Amino acid sequence: MNAMPPALQQQAQQLSDSVTRPVPGSRKVFAEGSRPDLRVAMREIVQTRTPTLFGGEDNPPVTVYDTSGPYTDPDARIDLSTGLPALRARWIEERGDTALLAALSSGFGRAREVDAKLDAVRFPTRRLPRRARDGANVTQMHYARRGIVTPEMEYVAIRENQRLELLEAGPDGRHPLLSQHPGQSFGASIPARITPEFVRDEIARGRAILPCNINHPESEPMIIGRNFLTKINANIGNSAVSSGIAEEVEKLVWAIRWGADNVMDLSTGRHIHETREWIIRNSPVPIGTVPIYQALEKVDGRAEELTWEIFRDTLIEQAEQGVDYFTIHAGVLLRYVPLTARRVTGIVSRGGSIMAKWCLAHHRESFLYEHFEEICDIMKAYDVAFSLGDGLRPGCIADANDAAQFGELETLGELTKIAWKHDVQTMIEGPGHVPMQLIRENMDKQLAECGEAPFYTLGPLTTDIAPGYDHITSAIGAAMIGWYGTAMLCYVTPKEHLGLPNRQDVRDGIMAYRIAAHAADLAKGHPGAQVRDNALSKARFEFRWEDQFHLGLDPEKAKEFHDETMPKDAHKLAHFCSMCGPHFCSMKITQDVREFAAGRAGAAGPDADAGDVAAAGMAAKAAEFRAAGAELYRPG
Amino acid sequence: MNAMPPALQQQAQQLSDSVTRPVPGSRKVFAEGSRPDLRVAMREIVQTRTPTLFGGEDNPPVTVYDTSGPYTDPDARIDLSTGLPALRARWIEERGDTALLAALSSGFGRAREVDAKLDAVRFPTRRLPRRARDGANVTQMHYARRGIVTPEMEYVAIRENQRLELLEAGPDGRHPLLSQHPGQSFGASIPARITPEFVRDEIARGRAILPCNINHPESEPMIIGRNFLTKINANIGNSAVSSGIAEEVEKLVWAIRWGADNVMDLSTGRHIHETREWIIRNSPVPIGTVPIYQALEKVDGRAEELTWEIFRDTLIEQAEQGVDYFTIHAGVLLRYVPLTARRVTGIVSRGGSIMAKWCLAHHRESFLYEHFEEICDIMKAYDVAFSLGDGLRPGCIADANDAAQFGELETLGELTKIAWKHDVQTMIEGPGHVPMQLIRENMDKQLAECGEAPFYTLGPLTTDIAPGYDHITSAIGAAMIGWYGTAMLCYVTPKEHLGLPNRQDVRDGIMAYRIAAHAADLAKGHPGAQVRDNALSKARFEFRWEDQFHLGLDPEKAKEFHDETMPKDAHKLAHFCSMCGPHFCSMKITQDVREFAAGRAGAAGPDADAGDVAAAGMAAKAAEFRAAGAELYRPG
Repeated sequence: MNAMPPALQQQAQQLSDSVTRPVPGSRKVFAEGSRPDLRVAMREIVQTRTPTLFGGEDNPPVTVYDTSGPYTDPDARIDLSTGLPALRARWIEERGDTALLAALSSGFGRAREVDAKLDAVRFPTRRLPRRARDGANVTQMHYARRGIVTPEMEYVAIRENQRLELLEAGPDGRHPLLSQHPGQSFGASIPARITPEFVRDEIARGRAILPCNINHPESEPMIIGRNFLTKINANIGNSAVSSGIAEEVEKLVWAIRWGADNVMDLSTGRHIHETREWIIRNSPVPIGTVPIYQALEKVDGRAEELTWEIFRDTLIEQAEQGVDYFTIHAGVLLRYVPLTARRVTGIVSRGGSIMAKWCLAHHRESFLYEHFEEICDIMKAYDVAFSLGDGLRPGCIADANDAAQFGELETLGELTKIAWKHDVQTMIEGPGHVPMQLIRENMDKQLAECGEAPFYTLGPLTTDIAPGYDHITSAIGAAMIGWYGTAMLCYVTPKEHLGLPNRQDVRDGIMAYRIAAHAADLAKGHPGAQVRDNALSKARFEFRWEDQFHLGLDPEKAKEFHDETMPKDAHKLAHFCSMCGPHFCSMKITQDVREFAAGRAGAAGPDADAGDVAAAGMAAKAAEFRAAGAELYRPG
Repeated sequence: MNAMPPALQQQAQQLSDSVTRPVPGSRKVFAEGSRPDLRVAMREIVQTRTPTLFGGEDNPPVTVYDTSGPYTDPDARIDLSTGLPALRARWIEERGDTALLAALSSGFGRAREVDAKLDAVRFPTRRLPRRARDGANVTQMHYARRGIVTPEMEYVAIRENQRLELLEAGPDGRHPLLSQHPGQSFGASIPARITPEFVRDEIARGRAILPCNINHPESEPMIIGRNFLTKINANIGNSAVSSGIAEEVEKLVWAIRWGADNVMDLSTGRHIHETREWIIRNSPVPIGTVPIYQALEKVDGRAEELTWEIFRDTLIEQAEQGVDYFTIHAGVLLRYVPLTARRVTGIVSRGGSIMAKWCLAHHRESFLYEHFEEICDIMKAYDVAFSLGDGLRPGCIADANDAAQFGELETLGELTKIAWKHDVQTMIEGPGHVPMQLIRENMDKQLAECGEAPFYTLGPLTTDIAPGYDHITSAIGAAMIGWYGTAMLCYVTPKEHLGLPNRQDVRDGIMAYRIAAHAADLAKGHPGAQVRDNALSKARFEFRWEDQFHLGLDPEKAKEFHDETMPKDAHKLAHFCSMCGPHFCSMKITQDVREFAAGRAGAAGPDADAGDVAAAGMAAKAAEFRAAGAELYRPG
């Protein structure tokens, strides 16, 4: 172990309360699997009873997907300098197909390790990497294709179900909160219950990936595929004027608190290697990177000087740190580059433009394309998943769905098949900027070209005219493409195109994307997707303000907004809403309607025709209603 | 004229600079019509030249739709206590079918007029109302059906075209900024150019409305219909603890500054009548109201005591003030009310719940339904348009598209036909809360039941689980339903369900809805819809930062965000973007690709096959590229 630098040590113990405090109204729960070390973390939102006025019944707790890891667990002790517990370590060891290495395999990694100047920023615990034994393939896809259900697969099956079984088999049978509209899924195959075997099968056929590098045993398994809940990715990373290491880790914790399922570390600064180590050791979610960024730094920013050897060493360096997926822009072929020349905004992907420049400088196909099978060999030795980059994605509405973009997508389809030949897990990145009427074509083409490999899109932004609000322009497109079948949505923050997101921007971006992902799940008809909507709406109707806040995606913001208008605690129990005031509230009136109709329905039977019901006994009931005072406001 | 109360006088002259200052980078322009008093206000965004590095050409100004009225015109003198100029007064007089009344027709209006206690809040200029001469029908629909093209119709034709002709017939022919993707319009009939005759025809067949009460001559004509640009509505209005009158007017000016095409005044406070007068006299956009709110106040909030006489007097009171459209919940029939009883959130529309309560209390159909033809008689005497309210709209995802909602929609279809028999302009209000997969059914059913009368929807919100972010949950649904054919989108602010929107919430809500409306216009393929996207993206590519800000929906926010990362003025001219820093910028690399390809295209011809092009001369070009330094950063 290195000497822990005091300044960093202090920072590491000072993760701010704002990122670690428990989520209001929730508690951490664990659903156990088939073995004692398989405990799936979830968040349970506790509800209060319905007020007597509205029926007085109990409301069940609502379990929701929890990406926040141990940071929101009051029982967990957080110390960034030791990292999170290695949840998966035993599972990986048990498989017996990997070995601990005696030293890092990458030259760059070894050089960093002995550079004393880096002691001040280095993660204090030296960790030896693990790699597949000679000839072994350690990907989840490989296991899946051999019929093996790994603990990781069981974990995600339990996780995806969100304990719906508690509502399905309650004391009174199936709970009303489970009722939902039929979905429209555009050919998805979403089962009523996610089983470990279903997870295995989806991974085996390439329709889902479970990103889990053997060197990132701290991660809580999660799955990305069109037949699972729609996921979101948040980007973090320092740049130009570098943010500190502790600050980057805090960004990670902040992002997963709000619901990022994956985080990509896009750092380009001086301590990119060391920052990454801190991030991975402390991350309960898969971490993705774009290795070409770091490779470019190794050649001082001169793209044409990039070589396969440098890139290969970078892949190994990062794979041994535990990066779970690599964005690799191997589809930028020489012949596509001129197709971008007459675009309005050319090539906007950083990785794409680096590769385009390299191709032009060398007048040949890129080393990513030419060495693609060797890359597969590295990926399968650590179980790093491909995120095949869309280096030619459109950067504006005008450039959407053009020949360059779709040409690259076809190549990504070919590369997917090569990756699958090696049992390497693969997802495909997608655009970008696309007007609504052209979004569906992107999804359909991706499904066709890439054999249903998971699609992972950035937005898309549905218009270019709102800089400062691109979390919204893109949430529209993200919700739609999620509905059509995209498996993971890469968030966009309000600062897109303008600057680096601060903490508030990250929160706003994640919220917009949690909304898009959930709207997509509802529309696809995922089992139980409507439970939280139903519970929140019922709470809203019954003026259970605190429950409404707690069931929302951002309880703190909801409460804060409510308090601006009605700051007193007593109002949290008020049987009226702030918009209408105490004497004029449609919800109160509805309650009268309900009581009125309930009386009548009792007489006519629950399935009586509405017209008959209306005709029957209306006059008598009206008299009764008026006699009772016809008054709506009742002190709560 | 009343004595102007000094406090109010002071407020009226103190509209804050933030709501009246010119929009950065823009100037007010006027497009003239067939007569000298027909001058259509627009906003012209001025662009700078493309930097020499990128070609050095001129960039044309971009004309955009301007809802802000005289408030952003530096030549206009604003004094709220005198109101805006009566732009349409002569047009109305010329038609010779109206008469100035000697006194207000409504008993309530007359009583307010002589109540000395109201002097302190009364609009200082007494205005006599105008009404159709006996037997006359003064609606734009009536004129349209008789083949008359009014100045109002010509105004909106010019306004909708946004001076596209300047780009269509430039010195070099059709400007490249006009290029756009084919739209998908779901059966809309959008012409290449909006002519006054087209406007007349659309109004005549009921497919569009031009809300313009003869007592609101200050309004700038605008049109709502599926074959025109998608419009948005913002709600203002005091409540419970009342905001001041000057504050309400300032809210109006703030809302139209950001792009509200219509404003609904939903005030329920003590000075509702007087506040409305101030708002209308100072509003260049149509003002809508929900008259039942005020009628309810007249019976101290006891819905069951509402009568046709009270309601009728309220309609006349408001029509003589100049309200341009009334939300009237005449479709809440007795037989639909029990259908809401088993809903999760019952009846959430205030108007709907008032009428439901009335129906239950009286066990009969509402006076709105029973007196509908008499209401039509009032509407056509002032040209007030119907906004047929969806009193039974769903208040949560669970209640979407249910029998109550669709039953009411069918009745609204019947009422539309009655209104059209009277040549009364009519639009139809729609939901609400609807998951994505059920949105299209709403639009299709509305088109079918209501004969393509304009649809005017609130969102819809696509999930219930994000209180605090419902401008986003609903912008997703709004963009989609706008694409499908909704003519006007009623905004939702982040405070929806939680409290009263403040100024920032109004801005955020309007921005989300301007995005949704524009995304819909792009997707439908409105001619010229992509011009602003194209111009902004070109500016972005060429690092014309100021142009990018100015072309955006919110130039101030964009600049502020950019300045957070790169505050120096010099950076506004920097040829790199803040995300990547000066040494690593994909846009710069693209520029190299473009120059490279341009050289080759010159040799191979612009239509040469990409493969051929790539094969030809690649080696030579690569050498040349490297010889030139292969360096990307050039001092700007």
